[in-house]
Amino acid sequence: MGAAMLSEMATEIVVPVCAVIGIAFSLVQWVMVSRVKLTSERHASSANSSKNGYGDYLIEEEEGINDHSVVTKCADIQNAISEGATSFLFTEYQYVGIFMIAFAILIFLFLGSVEGFSMKSQPCTYDKEKMCKPALATAIFSTVSFLLGAITSVLSGFLGMKIATYANARTTLEARKGVGKAFIVAFRSGAVMGFLLAANGLLVLYIAINLFKLYYGDDWEGLFEAITGYGLGGSSMALFGRVGGGIYTKAADVGADLVGKVERNIPEDDPRNPAVIADNVGDNVGDIAGMGSVGILVCLITTLFATDLFEIKVVKEIEPALKKQLIISTILMTVGIAIVTWIGVPSSFTIYNFGVQKVVKNWQLFLCVGVGLWAGLIIGFVTEYYTSNAYSPVQDVADSCRTGAATNVIFGLALGYKSVIIPIFAIAISIFVSFSFAAMYGIAVAALGMLSTIATGLAIDAYGPISDNAGGIAEMAGMSHRIRERTDALDAAGNTTAAIGKGFAIGSAALVSLALFGAFVSRAAITTVDVLTPKVFIGLIVGAMLPYWFSAMTMKSVGSAALKMVEEVRRQFNTIPGLMEGHAKPDYATCVKISTDASIKEMIPPGALVMLTPLIVGTFFGVETLSGVLAGALVSGVQIAISASNTGGAWDNAKKYIEAGVSEHARTLGPKGSDPHKAAVIGDTVGDPLKDTSGPSLNILIKLMAVESLVFAPFFARHGGLLFKIF
Amino acid sequence: MGAAMLSEMATEIVVPVCAVIGIAFSLVQWVMVSRVKLTSERHASSANSSKNGYGDYLIEEEEGINDHSVVTKCADIQNAISEGATSFLFTEYQYVGIFMIAFAILIFLFLGSVEGFSMKSQPCTYDKEKMCKPALATAIFSTVSFLLGAITSVLSGFLGMKIATYANARTTLEARKGVGKAFIVAFRSGAVMGFLLAANGLLVLYIAINLFKLYYGDDWEGLFEAITGYGLGGSSMALFGRVGGGIYTKAADVGADLVGKVERNIPEDDPRNPAVIADNVGDNVGDIAGMGSVGILVCLITTLFATDLFEIKVVKEIEPALKKQLIISTILMTVGIAIVTWIGVPSSFTIYNFGVQKVVKNWQLFLCVGVGLWAGLIIGFVTEYYTSNAYSPVQDVADSCRTGAATNVIFGLALGYKSVIIPIFAIAISIFVSFSFAAMYGIAVAALGMLSTIATGLAIDAYGPISDNAGGIAEMAGMSHRIRERTDALDAAGNTTAAIGKGFAIGSAALVSLALFGAFVSRAAITTVDVLTPKVFIGLIVGAMLPYWFSAMTMKSVGSAALKMVEEVRRQFNTIPGLMEGHAKPDYATCVKISTDASIKEMIPPGALVMLTPLIVGTFFGVETLSGVLAGALVSGVQIAISASNTGGAWDNAKKYIEAGVSEHARTLGPKGSDPHKAAVIGDTVGDPLKDTSGPSLNILIKLMAVESLVFAPFFARHGGLLFKIF
Repeated sequence: MGAAMLSEMATEIVVPVCAVIGIAFSLVQWVMVSRVKLTSERHASSANSSKNGYGDYLIEEEEGINDHSVVTKCADIQNAISEGATSFLFTEYQYVGIFMIAFAILIFLFLGSVEGFSMKSQPCTYDKEKMCKPALATAIFSTVSFLLGAITSVLSGFLGMKIATYANARTTLEARKGVGKAFIVAFRSGAVMGFLLAANGLLVLYIAINLFKLYYGDDWEGLFEAITGYGLGGSSMALFGRVGGGIYTKAADVGADLVGKVERNIPEDDPRNPAVIADNVGDNVGDIAGMGSVGILVCLITTLFATDLFEIKVVKEIEPALKKQLIISTILMTVGIAIVTWIGVPSSFTIYNFGVQKVVKNWQLFLCVGVGLWAGLIIGFVTEYYTSNAYSPVQDVADSCRTGAATNVIFGLALGYKSVIIPIFAIAISIFVSFSFAAMYGIAVAALGMLSTIATGLAIDAYGPISDNAGGIAEMAGMSHRIRERTDALDAAGNTTAAIGKGFAIGSAALVSLALFGAFVSRAAITTVDVLTPKVFIGLIVGAMLPYWFSAMTMKSVGSAALKMVEEVRRQFNTIPGLMEGHAKPDYATCVKISTDASIKEMIPPGALVMLTPLIVGTFFGVETLSGVLAGALVSGVQIAISASNTGGAWDNAKKYIEAGVSEHARTLGPKGSDPHKAAVIGDTVGDPLKDTSGPSLNILIKLMAVESLVFAPFFARHGGLLFKIF
Repeated sequence: MGAAMLSEMATEIVVPVCAVIGIAFSLVQWVMVSRVKLTSERHASSANSSKNGYGDYLIEEEEGINDHSVVTKCADIQNAISEGATSFLFTEYQYVGIFMIAFAILIFLFLGSVEGFSMKSQPCTYDKEKMCKPALATAIFSTVSFLLGAITSVLSGFLGMKIATYANARTTLEARKGVGKAFIVAFRSGAVMGFLLAANGLLVLYIAINLFKLYYGDDWEGLFEAITGYGLGGSSMALFGRVGGGIYTKAADVGADLVGKVERNIPEDDPRNPAVIADNVGDNVGDIAGMGSVGILVCLITTLFATDLFEIKVVKEIEPALKKQLIISTILMTVGIAIVTWIGVPSSFTIYNFGVQKVVKNWQLFLCVGVGLWAGLIIGFVTEYYTSNAYSPVQDVADSCRTGAATNVIFGLALGYKSVIIPIFAIAISIFVSFSFAAMYGIAVAALGMLSTIATGLAIDAYGPISDNAGGIAEMAGMSHRIRERTDALDAAGNTTAAIGKGFAIGSAALVSLALFGAFVSRAAITTVDVLTPKVFIGLIVGAMLPYWFSAMTMKSVGSAALKMVEEVRRQFNTIPGLMEGHAKPDYATCVKISTDASIKEMIPPGALVMLTPLIVGTFFGVETLSGVLAGALVSGVQIAISASNTGGAWDNAKKYIEAGVSEHARTLGPKGSDPHKAAVIGDTVGDPLKDTSGPSLNILIKLMAVESLVFAPFFARHGGLLFKIF
């Protein structure tokens, strides 16, 4: 009884308190980041007073600290990036806003029609004696929570972008003082974003639930149904953010790389390259705004470990530091969960699994969370192994560049395929264990376990693009080669951590989708999803095809947009006199516009595919086929998402391995501009849309389709399967 | 009753008669091919007497007909290829032989142990009153039929290789007379192979069934169980043929291309390139022996259409001719099936579907076959659209070469993903329709329908590598540019038709596997395969991963072998004086040896993965998980197989499109050696392992796993799931 009270307390007090602490913590981190001044006047004073206060930290070697013109340049570049990103997001949100309103109307109409828009109360499904709120109310509240989720997601994306653009130039400036300083700023900014967005999402959800409860009272079923709209709103915005932003950034990136590095032989992010601002804008709107839209619970302590307890002094410490983060957070979390389940969870409780009651013990629940948590760690390690250039897989890929781009592509694709094996086993084991103990509830809890270590994950993940941008700014501001090397090292670690973050995201997406799928099946009142019935099997095979269709669209979009970008960049190099010599400024704005237009136009078909598929399948083919589609998309999408992320990460780091030339082997392949290096650049370019557009969108795809099916389940169960009813 | 008698007659008389007719027809075709003489003496007389007899055909333009040295050269080259292929196959079969014997022992032990090696008869499962033959007998007969299937498959592969090497030089010689003549020889040789192998397989199967029947009598269940071993033997050999041969050919191909075309700027198949003989050997052992191992029913009339009724005069007629073949065979087959079902099938009959009786009408059966047949045609058309350079998809890919290899790879991958959409819908519709009418039996019948048009398929498919080789021989024998252009045109059409053949193969494999899967579930006595049980779901997600694992292995193998080949070729160019100038002969033998060793060594892990997975899963996790694995591998493997084949075909033809330069657009991208052409060559090289190693092996993978599960089903049902029994 006492335990139950604690459990009640958890939702009533702990959640809002956590949210507020998260927001407060992120503000503290922000203040720390903002100590790096971007205006040259203030910076001058800060540099002067560096013997006390902030400057007390150990500084390995300072370089160009007092060069005020550099600071001004950085500030200018940052402004250009920030303006570009803001204008892109506003344009994107205009289009997406229309879509959201249309979809909100659809939700209202579909769900309202379940009981013919009747205002009357109806018997509850779990207890026919009791009366529950009318379907029309669920329709209204679902629509409201959908819009709420969408708006929260938009806000999060926008905030994330603002933080990232705020942080990138500051990271560059700190890189002058040493790699450790730059790492702290980049990582702190990541933490600001992680905490702010997660806390924000949690708080809005908490408020929404409590407001809805005023109406629903003890009608938990109705409340639950209404609130799923929140997830749908959030994840559909995240999808558009990911796809639109992903196309944007990769069009610019691929375009800039192709002409700059391959044709003109000028360095990455060279200010002479007209596409370079578009590329940097893209990093912020794509990688950050898209990812930031997905809020999760985060953990304070591990972040403190990263920024305050350990200090990074040399380049090769970055990756181990991030890895240590992962291990520490997993161990701490295991202890934390053990304590929480022991104190906060009744020693045994009953769950409903497709109409059957099942008693779950608290240690079983602990194992459910734990298996998800440790599966996450395994996925993280495997991803690191396959994407870090410290290990043989990436080195093999780099080595294959010796014989040209073709073998590089073959090896890279094979690496991505191979990297799927262990994560899938890890996911399969956690599904089996958690389902055996607590059915679909166990799977949801395992997903939570896996996400709990993404604590560090979001921070680490956001840190990657910030470092990437910092490097770009260093190059553009004409900083020295050494500073560029430091930001490159931060970025290489960022590639690996980004892949780890994507691994976590897809692993947890698989678990979350499965749990949502279970909830859908339960709400749609299906008892079994038998593969050997034709309705389910055709759903399964078509569902397994959807990730391919989606990837085809997004990759083609990036390719087409990149082609346009390449032509524009070539045109500028050929027509603007003095551009190659660095006398004239390129026309950045046209490149930004090309990326914006392309991504807005091209994000619509893949977005529509994902949003409309559950509606069409559910309405015309019914809930059995839709179940098949969800299962098929899940099992097939997970594989493509993991392999695409890892292939892309490996190619990027194989290129960086050759460029950095830290080992004997790497030096035989380099230097920059050698034939193997050119082959590596081709691989890197192919990998861009894989790892930053198709791959990471896929986990949103599977979650979104599942949550959408769940929201519309009552409608499909009542009116769905039209085609089979006709024939 | 009369109808039933006809049905009985079909199996007793029609089958062996068909088989004998098929063999006779293939011999006639062979005689026609053999009229092209390869010895210069006899050829001289044939050339002299070309005004009567064979030479009466319309000859558009003759070139170098009387150059005897060319004929001698061709004969020499053919001998070298044939010897290399024979020695490779013998080496391969030695290793595979050991594996087969080990696996045969395994089958005997596993199946024998079902009833503890008891010699006693046991009650039948379908009728407990009757006594059936002991499980030990099934074990023995399954082992025998497994070995029989394996030997038949080996024989077929060997015969196919012999025919192909017999035909390639003859096609080259005929190309001197015109593209139409060369086409007829290549196509006829394809027909020889198709008919001989299919008839051979059919005849052995017929004899085996009749011999087994002497023992089994009216114990149909036992007979059926014993005979499934035949399928397992055949398809496991086919797998090794495909994988080993696929690695062989692509190692050589990729290696030869990389050094030859990209580095040394010498033409494809130039005799100076040391890897060129290995490449040509590879075409024969990989594409033909592997594919030829899969026997199917073939149709005479359509072949006659191709070789005798229509005559091809110009290059651009080749593809429409092959397409016409496809349409004609589909229409004829529809009529034929209508007649057969009307005469030979009772107006209604009863089938058993998981213990439930179901009445099937003959028109329903007709629709089952028909839907498979027409789905095959749709798959064929879609494949043609995505892989032929007459349409925009391949032209877009070629166009993307303008901006380099990276965009080419991105566009090619996207094309492959996109090409999956319609075939999957076609497969889904045929599954739904045929299952609705006649359950799993309907699906088997639909598979038969789809395979019936492969009639032309096998012939068309075998024709591709023959043309490819013919081109190689023309180049090596120093024939003129015009002749090489003709064989190139044959080959470009061959790429498309090969992709069509692969589309059919994978489509029918999906249906066949599903039917086998149904049979497995039925024999393993499972009632439902519910995705929402954890045992099934973990199987599903792991099964969906298997094609990735398998592809990773095969692609990495090709990549590694190609690297070795490249180094050897470079070594020879650098160390053999006068090689580049054409004074010295390259050391072909070392290259052949590298390919042989690599493919033998590298085929073992992927082969073992496929062969052991059902055994391990069935034994340790039981039949439910195995069901999930089969379903997962099926729905995921189909997608990868289609996209891999089409991506590879598209890249190859994009390259040929640029080389041929037949349109204004193509000429802006060319000529050979231009930057876009180099980018296209990289795409082509990446596509090689995709389209000829990973892709086509996958349909064998899914069929093999299904048939293996079926063979071992009684064992798994009795002793399987050890792991779950322990915990």
